[in-house]
Amino acid sequence: MTKVSIVGGSGYTGGELLRLLTFHPQVEIHQVTSRAHLGEYIHQMHPNLRKISQLKFSDPGQLEPVDVLFLAVPHGEAQKKIQEYAGLAGKIVDLSADFRLRDPALYEKWYGQVHAAPQWLEKFAYGLPEINREAIRKADYVSGVGCNATASILSLLPVMQAGLVEAGAAVTIEIKVGSSEGGASVNAGSHHPERSGVIRTFSPFGHRHTAEVIQAFGLEKLWLTMTAVDLVRGALATAHVQLKPGVAMKDLWKAYRAVAQENPFVRLVNEKRGIYRVPEPKVLAGSNYADLGFALDEESNHLVSICAIDNLMKGASGSAVQCMNLMMGWDEMTGLEFPGLHPA
Amino acid sequence: MTKVSIVGGSGYTGGELLRLLTFHPQVEIHQVTSRAHLGEYIHQMHPNLRKISQLKFSDPGQLEPVDVLFLAVPHGEAQKKIQEYAGLAGKIVDLSADFRLRDPALYEKWYGQVHAAPQWLEKFAYGLPEINREAIRKADYVSGVGCNATASILSLLPVMQAGLVEAGAAVTIEIKVGSSEGGASVNAGSHHPERSGVIRTFSPFGHRHTAEVIQAFGLEKLWLTMTAVDLVRGALATAHVQLKPGVAMKDLWKAYRAVAQENPFVRLVNEKRGIYRVPEPKVLAGSNYADLGFALDEESNHLVSICAIDNLMKGASGSAVQCMNLMMGWDEMTGLEFPGLHPA
Amino acid sequence: MTKVSIVGGSGYTGGELLRLLTFHPQVEIHQVTSRAHLGEYIHQMHPNLRKISQLKFSDPGQLEPVDVLFLAVPHGEAQKKIQEYAGLAGKIVDLSADFRLRDPALYEKWYGQVHAAPQWLEKFAYGLPEINREAIRKADYVSGVGCNATASILSLLPVMQAGLVEAGAAVTIEIKVGSSEGGASVNAGSHHPERSGVIRTFSPFGHRHTAEVIQAFGLEKLWLTMTAVDLVRGALATAHVQLKPGVAMKDLWKAYRAVAQENPFVRLVNEKRGIYRVPEPKVLAGSNYADLGFALDEESNHLVSICAIDNLMKGASGSAVQCMNLMMGWDEMTGLEFPGLHPA
Amino acid sequence: MTKVSIVGGSGYTGGELLRLLTFHPQVEIHQVTSRAHLGEYIHQMHPNLRKISQLKFSDPGQLEPVDVLFLAVPHGEAQKKIQEYAGLAGKIVDLSADFRLRDPALYEKWYGQVHAAPQWLEKFAYGLPEINREAIRKADYVSGVGCNATASILSLLPVMQAGLVEAGAAVTIEIKVGSSEGGASVNAGSHHPERSGVIRTFSPFGHRHTAEVIQAFGLEKLWLTMTAVDLVRGALATAHVQLKPGVAMKDLWKAYRAVAQENPFVRLVNEKRGIYRVPEPKVLAGSNYADLGFALDEESNHLVSICAIDNLMKGASGSAVQCMNLMMGWDEMTGLEFPGLHPA
Repeated sequence: MTKVSIVGGSGYTGGELLRLLTFHPQVEIHQVTSRAHLGEYIHQMHPNLRKISQLKFSDPGQLEPVDVLFLAVPHGEAQKKIQEYAGLAGKIVDLSADFRLRDPALYEKWYGQVHAAPQWLEKFAYGLPEINREAIRKADYVSGVGCNATASILSLLPVMQAGLVEAGAAVTIEIKVGSSEGGASVNAGSHHPERSGVIRTFSPFGHRHTAEVIQAFGLEKLWLTMTAVDLVRGALATAHVQLKPGVAMKDLWKAYRAVAQENPFVRLVNEKRGIYRVPEPKVLAGSNYADLGFALDEESNHLVSICAIDNLMKGASGSAVQCMNLMMGWDEMTGLEFPGLHPA
Repeated sequence: MTKVSIVGGSGYTGGELLRLLTFHPQVEIHQVTSRAHLGEYIHQMHPNLRKISQLKFSDPGQLEPVDVLFLAVPHGEAQKKIQEYAGLAGKIVDLSADFRLRDPALYEKWYGQVHAAPQWLEKFAYGLPEINREAIRKADYVSGVGCNATASILSLLPVMQAGLVEAGAAVTIEIKVGSSEGGASVNAGSHHPERSGVIRTFSPFGHRHTAEVIQAFGLEKLWLTMTAVDLVRGALATAHVQLKPGVAMKDLWKAYRAVAQENPFVRLVNEKRGIYRVPEPKVLAGSNYADLGFALDEESNHLVSICAIDNLMKGASGSAVQCMNLMMGWDEMTGLEFPGLHPA
Repeated sequence: MTKVSIVGGSGYTGGELLRLLTFHPQVEIHQVTSRAHLGEYIHQMHPNLRKISQLKFSDPGQLEPVDVLFLAVPHGEAQKKIQEYAGLAGKIVDLSADFRLRDPALYEKWYGQVHAAPQWLEKFAYGLPEINREAIRKADYVSGVGCNATASILSLLPVMQAGLVEAGAAVTIEIKVGSSEGGASVNAGSHHPERSGVIRTFSPFGHRHTAEVIQAFGLEKLWLTMTAVDLVRGALATAHVQLKPGVAMKDLWKAYRAVAQENPFVRLVNEKRGIYRVPEPKVLAGSNYADLGFALDEESNHLVSICAIDNLMKGASGSAVQCMNLMMGWDEMTGLEFPGLHPA
Repeated sequence: MTKVSIVGGSGYTGGELLRLLTFHPQVEIHQVTSRAHLGEYIHQMHPNLRKISQLKFSDPGQLEPVDVLFLAVPHGEAQKKIQEYAGLAGKIVDLSADFRLRDPALYEKWYGQVHAAPQWLEKFAYGLPEINREAIRKADYVSGVGCNATASILSLLPVMQAGLVEAGAAVTIEIKVGSSEGGASVNAGSHHPERSGVIRTFSPFGHRHTAEVIQAFGLEKLWLTMTAVDLVRGALATAHVQLKPGVAMKDLWKAYRAVAQENPFVRLVNEKRGIYRVPEPKVLAGSNYADLGFALDEESNHLVSICAIDNLMKGASGSAVQCMNLMMGWDEMTGLEFPGLHPA
């Protein structure tokens, strides 16, 4: 069994890693740390694991060597200690935002601070297999992904890969997200009476995840707009893109089918009848699938492309485990088979 | 115009008082205090009042004399300053739990501490008009009501008033409540990802509001069980009571109709068809109505009696304004006409 | 008292009209019709009106003359009987889509059928006071508004009125809506287990309400994208617009403030702190207010403009009553004072 | 591989069986029938299985012999065709209510009709392993369980098994349920605007599942009260029971621990701190666990016992698969490992 540890296991991405790794047939969880919950059973924080795991949170200062180390610490922390972590494990998957961007200048622009370990940026492969599979396979260090970046990138992937987008086109992506995206820490705005039933466009543009989409596709005119809605898990990206003249429906079908065929966790959803005609995060809770759909206004060549994910899975911990599978040479889907629930 | 002030206006009951009193045709709000939000517009905390009220929060240390003073401060505070407040206003409505119980021993038993102003307890009339209307009319000082006590008392009122309950009967009342019952302060359990979708029996028995029901009816075997569900406003009490032998459906119809006829804000809901056959808090949000319903297991004389309210209205601020109307000799329903929404 | 009747009172817009008109100080409801619920009390369908109104549904075939007639019938029906209705009332407010568009060709294009009474189109004033107040004041016949059109038009009004939009600019409006928008009739997709928790982009473009926005502003490149979210009442429009070069924040503040000052039901929401910094439909349930907010990406002149409404109020019945107030020469806000709830 | 088929696969319990059996390592799904959806891919109805299963719905009239047959047809249908089904498979698990009660008179009393195949009743083992494991192991025919019966029985199991309940005690069980309990068919009350946010005590007593609890424990004074709340999956039973004099907390701990130890899918939840101190269905969605908790009013010997389940899993399809595992001699937990999600 491959030994893995998780640094920072009391939050939502840490908890999701714990769920996935507990049932992963190839690994054994060696340690999971939490300073605040040191010595407590992990099921105190993650009640779904009661009776299933007897693991306790251990001291982040007493990390032992393992094969694979997952970092699920707050943004900004991993870059300070990456040297130390690299001494403990040959392979690292960092779920934070610290090593997602290869260009220190891009990091500085979007995160408003100088990176503490810029020389490490190029050692990390960006951890979204759908756009970086081969690099991940060969990498020792893989970054996490931003959940909104994931939904945005995947919504654009078919048309970008197929070269269907007008050069210099303006791209507007409206992302609707559930409350788990804000993490496990409570704040005034997450108080249930205030958060329940909201439709709140909390970030009209300028969201940090935008940088990952820019890095992926080199777009110059790109706006991500974030709206919080009443749901715990899930993110839906609705992208508006001007396509090149002459692009027809058959070109789009071909482009989307290609992406679905090349990627085991991507599905094409574009139905003419039934309730579930378009991608919806509702049926993806707990699953690593990303569902893609599209519609074309043929009069104007205006494309609406839709991607649904579970922000904690494909948008965080699921992709992280998928990356580990690739790094270790295992089947990409190992331990990620849960299909989501219906109804849910 | 009658001058009123509110001590403690930044919380949910304070906000609801502000909404009601802003539109009340007989009163003018003189001051509303908040230490934490001193100087801010009230619509910073209560966004529904934007453009409607230009009032700002003032200093609780600089209260001026008024005709009626509403106290919406945390439990335990009013009893310490009641002498001072009484010097500022001839009429006081205290929404906290401080003056609900007439017996200092009962207070001590359920609140776990000695009352700071026991001599004031008997000066206060219990502020639920449906069981104490005449006393409230004559009172200068009126207490608030516990929201769960309100739903419980009203669920029992018809059969208690009509003398249909077996002496010494055990009474179990299951109360399901929305998240606003916990107040405006955030805590780990009110974090939306944790609170959304819950069915959480957080208090199997021992809830402090039990004392008010005991005081109202002298019941000896009484259990209130509290379960939190996914809703912001609303409380539903489902009471289980053993009736005297021989009580028939017609006795119950008579008892419930009497209560509905005697009380302008009580409605009887017991339909044979349609969607809304039983009382439901969903259609009561923002309204001061209490809806009552019942079912009798004729084989066993087991009664299920149901009461739905908006916990912030009939269960708090609505009843408080209703009490002011009675104390001032105005029509009991003044300023409380909003009927709730459908759908909602 | 002015006599009013409602044709079609069992649905959601009819129910909301009933709530508003029951409490309107200038009117008396003469008849409300429903073929399916003939003879039933209106509170069978609208449980919030129990004990408040003793009105029963009457036969739509037995309409009597009144001063103002509200039509809340399914789309397509009013145009067939408009001549007959006009014989019964000097003033008509039609909430359906039948008389919103002045140009029969525009109607045919977006509704896919020839209009049955094209000669009546120009007799109707479009019923959104914020863009058509003077015409409504003088009109005998006023149309309703599409809820999504209302949110979209109001989101654009400040910059269109102030002339800040680039000529020929592409405008993308993402609208998130609650389930009441679909009306009172059940369907497979409105089944709670399927509809709860959705984020469903059900109409990427081509929604019929687009036509009203085109009519209002003459935009050529306009896409309305509709996404259903988990909420009963409410619609939020997030508009993306390219502004003219050189437009600065102060121009926007001026443009938005002007619209808020000119229109009693429009509020500007653009706060730097607190929970409610941007417009949100959550606090507008039951209210006729439209909240507007905006953000400008100064690097690119990309504007995000936000409008929140209650789709059944400002987006339907509230605007209809507001129009009646204008047509009758009453204060525009009469009977529409309810400010919404917080929390809710 | 063991061949299994499902009769009636388009509903919610059928869909959940499909999810479980698709991933079950010992079985292969041979057929799944649906008259209404004949020929369609199962993922048309169960979108979570898209790309995972290529199975199509087949004709219920063309069933082929298999090893295990699951019946997920509407109540009343299995009893008419049981002879035929028994000719096709040596082992049958019927999820409907048809074979849950051994006594035809009990069936007739609670279901209001004469059973069509009374001679088959005693051939079926009641399919709740926690109270009938050995019989299920030996049985060829196993019934399903009522979801509310399951939650009720399990809430009582510790004290009944340990003999702690007063003879002839009255037992009141309040059950709060999500909307999936009503099945996949839409009705006026399941329309999202009407069903969202409800707290609706729709069955004060007389629910058919009561019969299963009576059969399990022989209780004479038993009331199950059903309240619908806003959730899709989940049921919480809160049972009120008078215990024998002298029963102490340590007796209860012993009784509950015993049940949790004897049953792999039962967990004891009774924490002093943290958010998840009591059983909650929220964290059980998709899982086969039943969480039990309790509280004792030591003054009065009044016990509140709580059981949380996913109504479609432990309360239906999960228990059905668990029964198949027992009947086939496999590990009881096979294919049922999913632990639920947190947050969710």
